[in-house]
Amino acid sequence: MADRIKIVTATRAGFCFGVKRAVDIAFDAAKKSRHVYTLGPIIHNPQVIEKLRSEGVAPIQSIDNRKIKTLIVRTHGVTNEMSARLGNKSYNVIDATCPFVKKAQRFAGLLRKEGYQVVIIGDREHPEVMGLMSYAGPDCIVISKEDPLPKLRSRVGVVVQTTQPISVLKRFVGESIDQVKELKVFNTICNSTALRLKETKRIAKGVDAVLVVGGKNSANTTQLAKFCISMSVPTYHIETAKEIRKEWFKDVKKVGITAGASTPDWIIEEVADRIRYIGGRS
Amino acid sequence: MADRIKIVTATRAGFCFGVKRAVDIAFDAAKKSRHVYTLGPIIHNPQVIEKLRSEGVAPIQSIDNRKIKTLIVRTHGVTNEMSARLGNKSYNVIDATCPFVKKAQRFAGLLRKEGYQVVIIGDREHPEVMGLMSYAGPDCIVISKEDPLPKLRSRVGVVVQTTQPISVLKRFVGESIDQVKELKVFNTICNSTALRLKETKRIAKGVDAVLVVGGKNSANTTQLAKFCISMSVPTYHIETAKEIRKEWFKDVKKVGITAGASTPDWIIEEVADRIRYIGGRS
Repeated sequence: MADRIKIVTATRAGFCFGVKRAVDIAFDAAKKSRHVYTLGPIIHNPQVIEKLRSEGVAPIQSIDNRKIKTLIVRTHGVTNEMSARLGNKSYNVIDATCPFVKKAQRFAGLLRKEGYQVVIIGDREHPEVMGLMSYAGPDCIVISKEDPLPKLRSRVGVVVQTTQPISVLKRFVGESIDQVKELKVFNTICNSTALRLKETKRIAKGVDAVLVVGGKNSANTTQLAKFCISMSVPTYHIETAKEIRKEWFKDVKKVGITAGASTPDWIIEEVADRIRYIGGRS
Repeated sequence: MADRIKIVTATRAGFCFGVKRAVDIAFDAAKKSRHVYTLGPIIHNPQVIEKLRSEGVAPIQSIDNRKIKTLIVRTHGVTNEMSARLGNKSYNVIDATCPFVKKAQRFAGLLRKEGYQVVIIGDREHPEVMGLMSYAGPDCIVISKEDPLPKLRSRVGVVVQTTQPISVLKRFVGESIDQVKELKVFNTICNSTALRLKETKRIAKGVDAVLVVGGKNSANTTQLAKFCISMSVPTYHIETAKEIRKEWFKDVKKVGITAGASTPDWIIEEVADRIRYIGGRS
């Protein structure tokens, strides 16, 4: 029998503060009320959504559905227009927006009020960014990783999608500073994102392969996977242990496990168990 | 006879707006009054200082000298304490501080008032920076080109010595942004400094040698010379045409002339004349 596979699991893998809070709110609401819905998937993890569905909490797209008794606003937040519309509803609304996203929304509104041209660093298709845009106003600009720098006004204010890598913000401030007279940046990148990326980097350096666990629709999980690939370590982005293939571990003595902010512990544990099982039989 | 030496003179060489204004103020004051003094050299160019001296305007170090009838505050500005002391004097005080330096002083005071940790990017020995420090308050930090990044507080406000190269500011914002939660930067680098550097770069690329004309004590002139040296073009930093040596032009077909913000036109013209004379005799 070959040596067992050594597993290094990131201590910062899995639920961040905002996700844990939102998922707790949803399970708690399920206990207290019937006809509980989340406005869109509460987090970007299909397995957690399924587990919630089995407890009676389902995602819904329309806020006008008559079945709603309790509606939960998801971690990524909503636009200020949607927030105002929800304020007029007769049903119970629970705001599970991540407090760090709320802060970024407040900063976007403040920069707008202070007369800055507001720049949002992030992915314009991401619900968090769509929310931020509504606070930043119609003149705001969204800049994503690969975007060339647009012509900027002389006073620019910046907020950042909480799960962006710091490199994108660094690039923007470095490139924009000689175009502008005043630059006010709220570095709203969540600390847990930065620390998770840092730990993943450290782990990826010392292993033969990395398993990145989390929703295929999760921006921060996908980012972790891309990051590991850029370090030239064999990388597998999986949602569950079922996707693991034995052949991935040929000649692998040490494997790293990391996971996005929306990946629950139970899935990470199943992944580790599955590798132990494969390692024991190799 | 060999071909004549072709000369390319930077259109932006010489007096910037603030220097021209200050020198005009000094010559004008000399006409209107006797016992006119400047608090330190009005600009960093010994030849201009000598010319002013011949008109009756001399630099002085103490503001308490009884001979003073008119005192001119120089382009680099003074500390807020000095400004207050001058306000109590019975003699005539003319403020020739560059308006762009004044603006940087105001921004430094504003950042302090708004509770930011104020960072000044510049040379801590330069009188302009000493002035800025007094407005930024006792907790401010001065960061020069080669300085390692210190530990920063979470809210940082930045002003820049008007004659700094943009590269130093770029480095600071890029390196500091992942340490801080909020960064407010007033890019107070004077446009004329940036444009002069840009034009010098363009000229240095296409010539066999560059003459950088200006005070040896002038920060922005020294910076131009360093910049040309970094481009691996033979570079000579001179104050006047007298320093030019014929042997510099052996095998030189094309020479560039650039000059700092405090270099008067007449010196630049003397330098060009001297090269023409050498070129004609080679």
